[in-house]
Amino acid sequence: MPLGEFDLIAQYFAQLGARRNDVALGVGDDGAILVPPPDHELVVVIDSLVAGRHFPPNSPAASIGHRVVAVNLSDLAAMGATPAWALLALTLPSADEAWLAEFALGAGASLQRFGVALVGGDTTAGPLTITAQLCGFVPRGTALRRDGARPGDAVIVSGTTGDAAFGLALEQDRHAGDSESARVLRQRFLYPTPRCELGIALRGIATACIDVSDGLAADLGKLCQASGCGAEIDLEALPLSAALQAVVERGHARESALNGGDDYELCFTVRPTEFARLADLAQHSATPLTRIGTVTERSGITLRDGAAVTQVSHRGFDHFA
Amino acid sequence: MPLGEFDLIAQYFAQLGARRNDVALGVGDDGAILVPPPDHELVVVIDSLVAGRHFPPNSPAASIGHRVVAVNLSDLAAMGATPAWALLALTLPSADEAWLAEFALGAGASLQRFGVALVGGDTTAGPLTITAQLCGFVPRGTALRRDGARPGDAVIVSGTTGDAAFGLALEQDRHAGDSESARVLRQRFLYPTPRCELGIALRGIATACIDVSDGLAADLGKLCQASGCGAEIDLEALPLSAALQAVVERGHARESALNGGDDYELCFTVRPTEFARLADLAQHSATPLTRIGTVTERSGITLRDGAAVTQVSHRGFDHFA
Repeated sequence: MPLGEFDLIAQYFAQLGARRNDVALGVGDDGAILVPPPDHELVVVIDSLVAGRHFPPNSPAASIGHRVVAVNLSDLAAMGATPAWALLALTLPSADEAWLAEFALGAGASLQRFGVALVGGDTTAGPLTITAQLCGFVPRGTALRRDGARPGDAVIVSGTTGDAAFGLALEQDRHAGDSESARVLRQRFLYPTPRCELGIALRGIATACIDVSDGLAADLGKLCQASGCGAEIDLEALPLSAALQAVVERGHARESALNGGDDYELCFTVRPTEFARLADLAQHSATPLTRIGTVTERSGITLRDGAAVTQVSHRGFDHFA
Repeated sequence: MPLGEFDLIAQYFAQLGARRNDVALGVGDDGAILVPPPDHELVVVIDSLVAGRHFPPNSPAASIGHRVVAVNLSDLAAMGATPAWALLALTLPSADEAWLAEFALGAGASLQRFGVALVGGDTTAGPLTITAQLCGFVPRGTALRRDGARPGDAVIVSGTTGDAAFGLALEQDRHAGDSESARVLRQRFLYPTPRCELGIALRGIATACIDVSDGLAADLGKLCQASGCGAEIDLEALPLSAALQAVVERGHARESALNGGDDYELCFTVRPTEFARLADLAQHSATPLTRIGTVTERSGITLRDGAAVTQVSHRGFDHFA
């Protein structure tokens, strides 16, 4: 017997995520009642995952749950915000209990890991589409934005990029591989780790920040456009994971690192005078940070490969192009 | 040539809704930065509309835009919250400019009418699903909830119910009619008016409140369940619109008033001692308020029709039943 909507919500979502004292009323009423901390600004984000568009339709439900929370956490990280509360809107083809239990496990672990309470949501029948909305905080005036980069700033990226795009290719059998490296890349796609701690640590250090969801070049392009400048990327400096390099040859790996999506790393800019603080931060937080280029006065993204220089479009992955 | 995602967002959504001084950063970054008022609690709601489920697939785009904002405003109204900020997540089969322009007009008018700023969103390709998330405020401790009703409280409903369900039937050609009354009922479905001012005015007066989205009996059932009590509804007291009575006979009209969804009226409970304040409020706000019954110790919803009494299930419209 299929469960009803209200039972579903009650059973799987009433207790998901962290407990927080600033939740005056959570799941179960027309809205949630929340107590924002004084002298802070609220940062709000929303992102949907659509089956067949953002994940293969047969993706593990736990991965879908993990990812819909993680992609929103990544947006909060890019703003330097401390995550706090989440809402989930689920459109599901059927009330499949096993699927929901797995989904809730994945979403719940991701919420819990970053101290986020699930405070409400909505469930309807329809084509599989999952939307999460998250709220976070920053002390007033300290949020990171896209529009503060200035010529001469260094361009930094966290971790490695290009992994998730290859993980997705492996998941979709567009690329074959069952090595340990292939497994690592699949995990990077299925269970990305948002850089929340890094985003918070970058308050007062980064001049601009964006998360790498649509591809490094595309997202850096958006940061530059918002800042009214451009950037030059040194292709030789792109941080490539050992797993990616084990699976494909260097040119292909670089291409993926530059244009592959779904890594959820942070790309940000800092004044060269901040390098020392940044090195401390990287060491303290055990987060690999790599300088990949420099902000330029000239708009657009320029790629440098030794002596060769090419100009690329600022556009990223475009859902309707 | 189809527009790209970023152009779409920029063109139709960057300036939608009201301007507010408490928006430090709106559409265009990874998240919006908002300044909550001191000594207030935040109320957050989220609701999705799925094509073919919440509206006929050929509904006017302006109606879909209006409704996705209105259903969320109605949830804020039920909490007694003053609406402030909105996020929109759109999943669209194609980047149809004419559709988007109409959708934006409908959503924008609804946002503007209640002083809400659109501060961000997400657009992806996929089956037509629209999610809106709204934030509102209440002075600390004054939010309305579902769980405060006590035996002896009067059950009140605003406006009239049953109209939208008939409007939908007309829209879907399940019912024929092109009279002025039919037009009024269609409008009630396509362009509902959330009771935001009433919700705010009920702070400190209503003991419990819910919005009527799934049907009066079902939603009152949820309020009673949350409050640990029941209610008796006097069928003769149900407020029926002139339009509904012109289109169907009384028994059918009552049935629609009791079980039809999508009216977005408020159903709330008050102590009998508050009747005088309530009458003032109704007159002052030109909002028709009707006492339809009484909260009972016995759980569940009881219907009284003269001397005849029947007990109904507490369940409302269930998306997966």
